[in-house]
Amino acid sequence: MCRWFPWLRKKKTMSTSVQLLGLSNAIVDILAHVDDAFLTRVGAPRGSMTLIDADQARNLYDQMGPATEMSGGSVGNSIAGFANLGGTAAYIGRVAADQLGAIFAHDMKSLGVEMRLPPETRQAPTARSHVLISPDGQRTMQTYLGACTEIAPKDISATTIGRPEIILIEGYIWDTPHGPEVTQRAMDLAHRAGARVALSLSDDQCVIRHHEAFTDAIGKRVEIVFANEAEITTLLGTDNFDEAVTRAAESNVLYALTRSEKGSVVVQGSQMHAEPAETVETVVDSTGAGDAYTAGFLYGLSRHEPLADCAKLGTRCAATVIQQVGARIEKGALA
Amino acid sequence: MCRWFPWLRKKKTMSTSVQLLGLSNAIVDILAHVDDAFLTRVGAPRGSMTLIDADQARNLYDQMGPATEMSGGSVGNSIAGFANLGGTAAYIGRVAADQLGAIFAHDMKSLGVEMRLPPETRQAPTARSHVLISPDGQRTMQTYLGACTEIAPKDISATTIGRPEIILIEGYIWDTPHGPEVTQRAMDLAHRAGARVALSLSDDQCVIRHHEAFTDAIGKRVEIVFANEAEITTLLGTDNFDEAVTRAAESNVLYALTRSEKGSVVVQGSQMHAEPAETVETVVDSTGAGDAYTAGFLYGLSRHEPLADCAKLGTRCAATVIQQVGARIEKGALA
Repeated sequence: MCRWFPWLRKKKTMSTSVQLLGLSNAIVDILAHVDDAFLTRVGAPRGSMTLIDADQARNLYDQMGPATEMSGGSVGNSIAGFANLGGTAAYIGRVAADQLGAIFAHDMKSLGVEMRLPPETRQAPTARSHVLISPDGQRTMQTYLGACTEIAPKDISATTIGRPEIILIEGYIWDTPHGPEVTQRAMDLAHRAGARVALSLSDDQCVIRHHEAFTDAIGKRVEIVFANEAEITTLLGTDNFDEAVTRAAESNVLYALTRSEKGSVVVQGSQMHAEPAETVETVVDSTGAGDAYTAGFLYGLSRHEPLADCAKLGTRCAATVIQQVGARIEKGALA
Repeated sequence: MCRWFPWLRKKKTMSTSVQLLGLSNAIVDILAHVDDAFLTRVGAPRGSMTLIDADQARNLYDQMGPATEMSGGSVGNSIAGFANLGGTAAYIGRVAADQLGAIFAHDMKSLGVEMRLPPETRQAPTARSHVLISPDGQRTMQTYLGACTEIAPKDISATTIGRPEIILIEGYIWDTPHGPEVTQRAMDLAHRAGARVALSLSDDQCVIRHHEAFTDAIGKRVEIVFANEAEITTLLGTDNFDEAVTRAAESNVLYALTRSEKGSVVVQGSQMHAEPAETVETVVDSTGAGDAYTAGFLYGLSRHEPLADCAKLGTRCAATVIQQVGARIEKGALA
């Protein structure tokens, strides 16, 4: 029916019982190489993710050099990576009925990922994140949420949740107007369907913005947490990583904690495993390292691998993605 | 005024006297890695460029894996490359008033290239070329021309042509309904403004489709021809490259002939220079090698370098672009 959403034409039985269901902001990345002077000029703190409005997005894009467009979004990347590894997955996130939305939907569908929400036909266009890549591979993001802000509790139902083994939610979704209700409803329905709830903390500023909500969710509804060093220390109120690990071990929540070149640490109660990073010759673009780790880790988990092997697979995925431009592992790159 | 065309909001004096003016189909590339079985399945002859309609484009995209989007188009790439090298350039080509059109316009403008036509607001969306990249870097293209088909003689005026030193036209533009009138008018107005006319033959099938028109144009209006081995032999009616060179030398037209790993040959009457290819460790994606050569060659020419040095610069650009994904040299890659 719709030129931009060929998948809408297809009658298909929704396979509700996937291994992994993602819930997140559906975002197309606009990637460009920049120097640090550019970051200073546009006032973007190196390595940060800043939310910007439509005017700021226009001004920034105006100043950016030639770019490449790719589907992105933190949990979007993890879901794509999980499907790329061979897992079954579905996705809840809002795109608009525009060309960027069609691109996002295509890239998911082409990996076998079901899009559980139709495109939004209101005013706001599909979200985009301007990913500014520094010469050393560091990335700075300026994100315009657009259609993502339209997600609402009515989008979360027994039908759209289905019966996943795990639901993966990103912290960033709390940045949308209805994020808190949307996520609570999703976690409750997922639990009712027998799923485990995984939360990716997104970034340390996001943890600061939603500290109370995250702490509450992790205490009551979340079984698995993905975080990097800055995020976990911010969440657990310490500036020492080892202290954060000690505090994380106080509950039975499974924490997968990534530490860039220091590898990752997996903690669940008294269990602890430290996994070294893989040696990588050149970091081309650090975008998506954490998302790829999450994909690999959850894929291991869905195959009931021991936690150490889950961490190994996550590490492998992260090492692969930072050696290419963009946040999603190219199809076949892990073959 | 327009959300997708921020450059429309800016009052600017059109600097009519650029070094290089491009006239071509304005296309966004949709790049995906495929295996040769995929090419067989979708009936795409390896290495070819096939024109497809909207339905075929939808079906093909439906079957393709996750993709990356980048501005493209043969002469579009050359113009971007020329501007990237530091030349002043302008561009005539039709995009639609949609997101892909905004991306194309942004990528040109961000390199300082003036877009001399406003976006088309009619039905057809911005053109896209599905670039299917084989494991060995070979690319196969299936192109939906969309808004490009709307270009018409009225778009070509003393204002849009201005006073370029060189106008670069691609063979593919003859594939559009008004291509023959558009190009003839452009060549005449450019000559009247004192410009030299360069023609890029696009591909050998394109030469077959428009053999008479190309031969006529080269005989009467074209001073510089860019072609690869298949294109020049097809144009000059021989299957032997050396014979083609001999025939090319019979006129005073400047021919820059690319031969992949065999380098390039530049011929103008009795002058002849053979330039070896650069050794490249891994061909990542051959897309845009010829376009990049053209950019470098014309940049040398615009600086009044000897032909041998123009060929060297073209070779450098081609070697750079085939070591990355996509047809446009990343900003700074030649620094």
